[in-house]
Amino acid sequence: MRKDGPISERGDGDHGQRSSAQRVLQAVRRHGPLARVDLGALLEMSPASISSLTSDLLREGFLREVPESGGAEPGRGRGRPKVLIELAPEAACMIAVKLTINRIEVARGDFAGGTGPVTARAFNTLELGADELLAALGDLIAGEIAALPASAGRLMGIGIAVQGLIHGAATIIWSPALSLRHVNIAAPLAARFGLPAIAMNDADCIALAIRQHSELQAIDNLAVVMLGTGVGMGLIIDGKLHAASSGLGAEFGHTKYQIDGPLCHCGRRGCIESFVGDYALYRDARSMLDLPNTDALHPSEEQMQALTDLAESGHPVAVSLFRQAGRALGYGLSNLIALLGPDLILVTGSGVRGFRQMEPAMRQALDEALVDTLRSQTEIRPRAWDEDLTLRGIVLQVLGEARTG
Amino acid sequence: MRKDGPISERGDGDHGQRSSAQRVLQAVRRHGPLARVDLGALLEMSPASISSLTSDLLREGFLREVPESGGAEPGRGRGRPKVLIELAPEAACMIAVKLTINRIEVARGDFAGGTGPVTARAFNTLELGADELLAALGDLIAGEIAALPASAGRLMGIGIAVQGLIHGAATIIWSPALSLRHVNIAAPLAARFGLPAIAMNDADCIALAIRQHSELQAIDNLAVVMLGTGVGMGLIIDGKLHAASSGLGAEFGHTKYQIDGPLCHCGRRGCIESFVGDYALYRDARSMLDLPNTDALHPSEEQMQALTDLAESGHPVAVSLFRQAGRALGYGLSNLIALLGPDLILVTGSGVRGFRQMEPAMRQALDEALVDTLRSQTEIRPRAWDEDLTLRGIVLQVLGEARTG
Repeated sequence: MRKDGPISERGDGDHGQRSSAQRVLQAVRRHGPLARVDLGALLEMSPASISSLTSDLLREGFLREVPESGGAEPGRGRGRPKVLIELAPEAACMIAVKLTINRIEVARGDFAGGTGPVTARAFNTLELGADELLAALGDLIAGEIAALPASAGRLMGIGIAVQGLIHGAATIIWSPALSLRHVNIAAPLAARFGLPAIAMNDADCIALAIRQHSELQAIDNLAVVMLGTGVGMGLIIDGKLHAASSGLGAEFGHTKYQIDGPLCHCGRRGCIESFVGDYALYRDARSMLDLPNTDALHPSEEQMQALTDLAESGHPVAVSLFRQAGRALGYGLSNLIALLGPDLILVTGSGVRGFRQMEPAMRQALDEALVDTLRSQTEIRPRAWDEDLTLRGIVLQVLGEARTG
Repeated sequence: MRKDGPISERGDGDHGQRSSAQRVLQAVRRHGPLARVDLGALLEMSPASISSLTSDLLREGFLREVPESGGAEPGRGRGRPKVLIELAPEAACMIAVKLTINRIEVARGDFAGGTGPVTARAFNTLELGADELLAALGDLIAGEIAALPASAGRLMGIGIAVQGLIHGAATIIWSPALSLRHVNIAAPLAARFGLPAIAMNDADCIALAIRQHSELQAIDNLAVVMLGTGVGMGLIIDGKLHAASSGLGAEFGHTKYQIDGPLCHCGRRGCIESFVGDYALYRDARSMLDLPNTDALHPSEEQMQALTDLAESGHPVAVSLFRQAGRALGYGLSNLIALLGPDLILVTGSGVRGFRQMEPAMRQALDEALVDTLRSQTEIRPRAWDEDLTLRGIVLQVLGEARTG
């Protein structure tokens, strides 16, 4: 139980009442539309408590009633369709922003955790100074606020998802998208708009959004490994997003595969990322294959897909590159498993396009690295990267989902 | 908030009242004797709430009053000595057991977290069958129960600390002390004595006991690395002992330093333990130095001290062995830091005798492995191994401290 949730909690007073209302909202956010009776069973609350809590939340506009879609199910023996309860999307809204290399996206988020249409703008992010960065973010946010429909509800805050290390939910310590270091982006934007603002690592956002899927909610220890230009991770430990006090941690990409190995983005040698990241695969491939020249640090999706196709078609150099990457990934995952023993590791991100090529070597490396007792408790599987969940994740974070889950 | 604490918690009913009483007991267990006013400040509760809660707990015998030692402090301007509240050790007791290679220890634990005199027995643990192991543990426990003084209070349970992997607080999956695998020791002992019984990894016990020290209670993310025959770890994440759903995790000793490196106890190659564990250091030393023959898997304290003294005196072979161990330890810690970003890593256990010899190479390896931004947020320091905290830790676990902290 933490004290920094969206509704403050104390040991005395109306603590029980407040946290019960919050638990109702959480349950409905996670499980979707629910009948009161199912909500009561889920939360182990009495019908009287559920009835009273939902009445209050309906009156306050946080919940709304909807008829069960399709009416009563045949054979369930109920005479009339049940009334379900769901979150009222218009109870509140927020502005969600995603900052990555050369691109800023912005969208509206609603109280039910949904996101509106995305506006994207291209920037030369590596060349931005702090004032320019804040102006770019601020102007996009201002545009989104100006475009909010009257029905959007109370504007509750701003959330910014950033590739890189974030300290104190405010300061970008380091980001591959920026040349800047140690820049607080939350405080100036909070001041400009008079709203709470938070910043958060993008892989953490994605881990939050993925765990929201109902089939994963029972998994208390989950690692989401993000393959792409770099290699990131979001960690759910004991049901909560792991954020070390320092704001660091979950830097899976900078654990080691090979001391004195190839140079990594970060300036050190032998990191997992220097074998598995898109830039590493493409750099090594270009030294051996006739591939188009490119900004080697940021190969395009088309270039990476071409390299993956080459491996799929059996080209020995490409096959061997993905095999080496798979081996490095497997040894990296073996350290993660030994230290934390997660129930499930999901491998996703745009780089999951090459997972099939990496998987055999990855599994063999895991087998070499860990005795069966340690290895067999953790499931590892890919997750298709068919939708960018970053904005959804930052919306959930602004809603306080992560802090009270 | 978990439902498996010693006092069951539900979302409804007298939840608030019960958890408040438990918070009072926890605070007193952690902070030692406290005045009611200080307790109220600590828990942010009103004087009326504190007065009512402590009256109940005094009447029920969980707390007792003591005069402030030394009376009123000069200059504090109070006319009479304050009355402090502390846990009543005799409110309950439990039996604490420690199972390691060739040795079983047993002691009484009290409600205040203290331990009584230790009875130790030598066994050839590697040769024990399951029935013999349970008989040996059971007979020692029965002897301790028979010797309980009448004043010891209600016997609340049995806790067994074991070197190795424990599943479900009951089953030893693997232990270096045993040839047995997958043996449930908790259920048969619980049945024999009609008491709750739990088993727990020894490094987890030590991490719990160490964090109990008041100067570490504010540290939410703490790793305790145990050097000795093997290399273990206890992890406190977000203020709680990390125990993956699988019961695994925290196997720092089996993360990798060098793929295809030397063979480890576990049967795989290149684990940190195969460079840093006592058995590894002594094995390598014996191949190069004139050292007494021994059971290579379990060199004695005297043998390890002699090897350490050799390094301290500057013998180049011994110096180089500890340097290599320090380098492996440093790279291992770099992975732990990258993944979890703990605030503090304490290195302890009997093997901390060699820390001074390992430290320079360890720090250099950390510097090579991680950029300053990642590395500098985590403090690493040794902790003298002058007291075995294993039994204290299992007592705290039986008291439910870990589950409600």
